[in-house]
Amino acid sequence: MRVYDIIKKKRDGNTLSKEEIDFFINGYVKGDIPDYQASALCMAIYFKGMTLEETTDLTLAIRNSGEVLDFSAVNGIRADKHSTGGVGDKTSLVVAPTVASLGVKVAKMSGRGLGHTGGTVDKLEAIPNFNVQLPKDEFIGIVNEVGVCIVGQSADLAPADKKLYALRDVTATVDSMPLIASSIMGKKLAADDDVIVLDVKTGSGSFMKSVQDSKTLAEIMVGIGKRAGKKTVALITDMDIPLGRAIGNALEVKEAIDTLKGKGEKDFLEVCIALATEMLYLSGKDDKNRCEMLVKDALISGKALKTFKAMISAQGGNAEVIEDFSLLPTAKYTHSVKATASGYIDKVNTEGYGLSALSLGAGRNRVGDNIDYSAGIILNKKTGDWVNKGDVIAVLHANNSSLFKNAEEIFLSATQISEQKPMLRPLILDRVE
Amino acid sequence: MRVYDIIKKKRDGNTLSKEEIDFFINGYVKGDIPDYQASALCMAIYFKGMTLEETTDLTLAIRNSGEVLDFSAVNGIRADKHSTGGVGDKTSLVVAPTVASLGVKVAKMSGRGLGHTGGTVDKLEAIPNFNVQLPKDEFIGIVNEVGVCIVGQSADLAPADKKLYALRDVTATVDSMPLIASSIMGKKLAADDDVIVLDVKTGSGSFMKSVQDSKTLAEIMVGIGKRAGKKTVALITDMDIPLGRAIGNALEVKEAIDTLKGKGEKDFLEVCIALATEMLYLSGKDDKNRCEMLVKDALISGKALKTFKAMISAQGGNAEVIEDFSLLPTAKYTHSVKATASGYIDKVNTEGYGLSALSLGAGRNRVGDNIDYSAGIILNKKTGDWVNKGDVIAVLHANNSSLFKNAEEIFLSATQISEQKPMLRPLILDRVE
Repeated sequence: MRVYDIIKKKRDGNTLSKEEIDFFINGYVKGDIPDYQASALCMAIYFKGMTLEETTDLTLAIRNSGEVLDFSAVNGIRADKHSTGGVGDKTSLVVAPTVASLGVKVAKMSGRGLGHTGGTVDKLEAIPNFNVQLPKDEFIGIVNEVGVCIVGQSADLAPADKKLYALRDVTATVDSMPLIASSIMGKKLAADDDVIVLDVKTGSGSFMKSVQDSKTLAEIMVGIGKRAGKKTVALITDMDIPLGRAIGNALEVKEAIDTLKGKGEKDFLEVCIALATEMLYLSGKDDKNRCEMLVKDALISGKALKTFKAMISAQGGNAEVIEDFSLLPTAKYTHSVKATASGYIDKVNTEGYGLSALSLGAGRNRVGDNIDYSAGIILNKKTGDWVNKGDVIAVLHANNSSLFKNAEEIFLSATQISEQKPMLRPLILDRVE
Repeated sequence: MRVYDIIKKKRDGNTLSKEEIDFFINGYVKGDIPDYQASALCMAIYFKGMTLEETTDLTLAIRNSGEVLDFSAVNGIRADKHSTGGVGDKTSLVVAPTVASLGVKVAKMSGRGLGHTGGTVDKLEAIPNFNVQLPKDEFIGIVNEVGVCIVGQSADLAPADKKLYALRDVTATVDSMPLIASSIMGKKLAADDDVIVLDVKTGSGSFMKSVQDSKTLAEIMVGIGKRAGKKTVALITDMDIPLGRAIGNALEVKEAIDTLKGKGEKDFLEVCIALATEMLYLSGKDDKNRCEMLVKDALISGKALKTFKAMISAQGGNAEVIEDFSLLPTAKYTHSVKATASGYIDKVNTEGYGLSALSLGAGRNRVGDNIDYSAGIILNKKTGDWVNKGDVIAVLHANNSSLFKNAEEIFLSATQISEQKPMLRPLILDRVE
């Protein structure tokens, strides 16, 4: 088999076999196939696409390039969720303990964030002493005992994806549905779950800007999940508006805890309930309506909060943060951003809000950059709210007050104030199963 | 400027500017732009194409990556021809001295062959002591004195093309019209000619299999030539059948000399006359009919042969080969290939004939391989000829008799004998100006 023939075959619009896809991924990871052939193939895939079968084969080849976990030591059904990423998206912090408190096991491996704010693992590390690097038996032990454990992805998770993504990133081949889907699912399927619920974000704060594209991606990923033998569902959720009010790691942990205390923002709560309900339902817990009732009850009763607390303790973190937010990293300085006119907050450029938070230190520009856990933004006003000129629409948090000027500029240029009250679309835009 | 943006721009079907194309070629030659970005761009060009303006900019960037010659010391109009390559194509050996004998200067730089047989330079080197590597002033001196000189391409000719072609060759991006055209013309335009006549081959013995593709390529190359200020014309000529009867370097030199002696094969002669006529006509020598008459006269009168002889002497070769073919390399062994049935020789796979010659030692598998100048094939029968079973249809020449078995097999599997007399298409299929 020659990679030249594989490139040519795809270039000519033909379907690659499992053997050809395995040959490519194995050879690329080993270094036998050079970057220049891999990038040519990625560009051919960009133009000619892949069938669901090819995409599944690619996904499994990516997964199999690294460690594939065995969760058979976990007692009970194992469910996971995955978000394609958005601004202020702290759903995992609420959804995982909620579902676990209802008897479904959540053995979650999360990535670190690149871009506006940290990933789930970064957010958890905002909690003093929280440990996201656990030996496998300890990880499984906590899952069995507490119901949930969230750790970082192992260094050996899907190395083919790391190498291929880095290449795609510099060769304009990121925006390809089969390549995006196989990258996400290749990592996801390395975990040994029974149920996968995908939260595919759509809008200005996500990498999929249109609902149609998000739905296409969701359909491919659900197709891959099912072909790999997992119960898989995707929700298409809105990311034209940041989720909740907090953007930034410790700020988001606080908002997640408030939500687990029954004091959550309506939009954030709605998405959390929808995702947790799907996880429960797919795990065979009960019918859909009953699952939703159970989820709501877990959030109101404090049951989910108790599980979150137990998880923090089990992972070495200081669980007192739940009662005392002052134990979380807190920025030295705050700065109020004021409305420049009176009117309704119109559609915002949510990615711009993320970049404003990044400029305050809440995210990473490059892999390995340090994150300032305390930095970020609290939104006082969101799309659809009326503001008078001079009203505080957001509060910026940073440990270096010189960062405020630039962050405020980015924030304001992402904000529009309009005389017309904007129409809001539903938060849950579609469901793909 | 970032190459990422250039790749993305082309990927999205937009037109690249001259600055972007220059940035890419310069950066790629210098090594600032890695192969993996260049191959992704080539694949995007494969799918999205290039306008004639972009292709011209690419051609000139390729040309300018190396030495661009100055022929201003040559007295008179300078004309060149270029063939896209075929089997048994020894036209340059006849056309160049013919045109030169009629007062148009031919300062020709030719490549070495890769594949079935050698290039023009390899063929000339079959003549004992013929020197294709001359200092520039000597080269120009011979052109002024004899009218024609044929040398090898300088090592510094269009290095961007060398690097890019090697990359395209392993990334399935060779078959792209703008990339093919800019590769050929980038080298051609490094010479300082007034007139360029292109011989675009079409059919089973050339890399363009269809007339339509050949015409498209011809149109692009003529467009580039004109935009670069050269008088440029292309003929589309048949390569479904080998040209003449000889395939192999010394064998082709003999056939070229026979042709210059007025004993040429009809098909080969027709193509030589057509090309030489175009060169003369574009050089402003006379009207088209008169030019054709002049060419025929030069071939019949021995005028062209005299010029060829003078060129051999001027370039250090043994000009006695013209009277005494035994001075040319001669194979130790010959082997007759016999018809396996009675009937008409049908359409042949001309590339197969080339590969049979290659297997006898007439060509190169890799750059740097040695060529056996004496090896090759003489065709006794060609498409349209009647043969009886057992008639000799070809004679193979080699210095190692163990090569015959395989070469004969390749030859016969490329030959079909049919009861129906095949239709022959015209040799000159189209003209693009």
